[in-house]
Amino acid sequence: MPPVGLIGLGAFGRLAATHLSPHLDLVAHDPAVAELDSVACVSLAEAASRPVVILAVPVQLIAEACQQIAPHLPEGALVLDVASVKLKPMAAMRAHLPAGTRILGTHPLFGPQSAADGLGGQSIVLCPEPGVDPACIADFLRDDLRLDVHISDADTHDRTMASVQALTHLVSKVITDLDLPAAPYTTRSYDLLKQAADLVAGDSDELFRAIERHNPHAGELRERFFRAARALDERLE
Amino acid sequence: MPPVGLIGLGAFGRLAATHLSPHLDLVAHDPAVAELDSVACVSLAEAASRPVVILAVPVQLIAEACQQIAPHLPEGALVLDVASVKLKPMAAMRAHLPAGTRILGTHPLFGPQSAADGLGGQSIVLCPEPGVDPACIADFLRDDLRLDVHISDADTHDRTMASVQALTHLVSKVITDLDLPAAPYTTRSYDLLKQAADLVAGDSDELFRAIERHNPHAGELRERFFRAARALDERLE
Repeated sequence: MPPVGLIGLGAFGRLAATHLSPHLDLVAHDPAVAELDSVACVSLAEAASRPVVILAVPVQLIAEACQQIAPHLPEGALVLDVASVKLKPMAAMRAHLPAGTRILGTHPLFGPQSAADGLGGQSIVLCPEPGVDPACIADFLRDDLRLDVHISDADTHDRTMASVQALTHLVSKVITDLDLPAAPYTTRSYDLLKQAADLVAGDSDELFRAIERHNPHAGELRERFFRAARALDERLE
Repeated sequence: MPPVGLIGLGAFGRLAATHLSPHLDLVAHDPAVAELDSVACVSLAEAASRPVVILAVPVQLIAEACQQIAPHLPEGALVLDVASVKLKPMAAMRAHLPAGTRILGTHPLFGPQSAADGLGGQSIVLCPEPGVDPACIADFLRDDLRLDVHISDADTHDRTMASVQALTHLVSKVITDLDLPAAPYTTRSYDLLKQAADLVAGDSDELFRAIERHNPHAGELRERFFRAARALDERLE
């Protein structure tokens, strides 16, 4: 793997730094972070001048980050994002990165909670722009990080994630909002439901909004969920 | 354990027959079942004349079953039900069983799906009527069936189960109703949610209604769930 610059050291950026730095030459930049054990913190210009740049910033800030790194990127740089949706951030990258930049959208389907015990067996989706060959990155993710790698396109990804992630986060958020007292005896299905809710309970509101609002297919899924719930409720009355 | 008569050989009655018959003298009656490998099928009068009688019938039919077994019960018989709610069936048993009958409400927190790999570690709640000592039954369930035994009262049980079971079944039913396509890549929290839904997807509509309609605390929980869901939805718009 060529040298990599990581932009953003929030919850996911830190997780990435921890798992990437043992395997490759990594520096990172975050205006709010001066020093970190897992990775050397450098200027934006230095991090953005590497042949591979990873944008670990919220989907809402991708366009701005692209404008900031654009002047520093080497010719033909490969730029990756890690946002939970893919249509919007990839369009933003195309709009704001120099022509000739190779764009590889990625969605790691895990976070600090679900990867607390390691990355092995976790999934990541790669959405390469037409003409970008993801083979080298895919091999690294598979062989060195033991990830389960899926290649997809941005629309298929967002459609799939509307069912998977928008639904999970919606249900989990509602369950967390209910703030139920600890039960002295439970069923196995309740335990599973609670585990699911707890896994995403620590996720930021920003991530929740990104998943629900920046996925163009999430609104329809939410509507179907509420329609099914209302129908069920009426059947019970 | 004294001889036991089991009334009802639906999904749960069959599960009970399979796990009880190796440990005790068991006969069963179900008007719809003439023969079964796991247990001897006998007349209602014969099954109901045993010192311990288990009613494995839907909560809606408990009163009727009590009226049917009443003439055959021996003096001081111990009658158990296995319904998912406890206030209503225990009141029905008290109303329709002869004075002197000892009543022990039970709620096995598992079913054919969740106990597919065995009973070990599964939970059961016992709600004895005042004056009924559940120790002998509790010891049997704990030592011979390896169940996790909880002693409670009917109101505490129903209150707890409104959060645990009414919520789980509501969410699971909605997810099952959505009939989502199989996803090529998923998150761990989605997998847990789907497992929870699949565990109760096979449960009968009768059980779902019993859990939601015959638990006096379930309506309030459902209302809170829909209120939280609506609030979340509005926040996203």
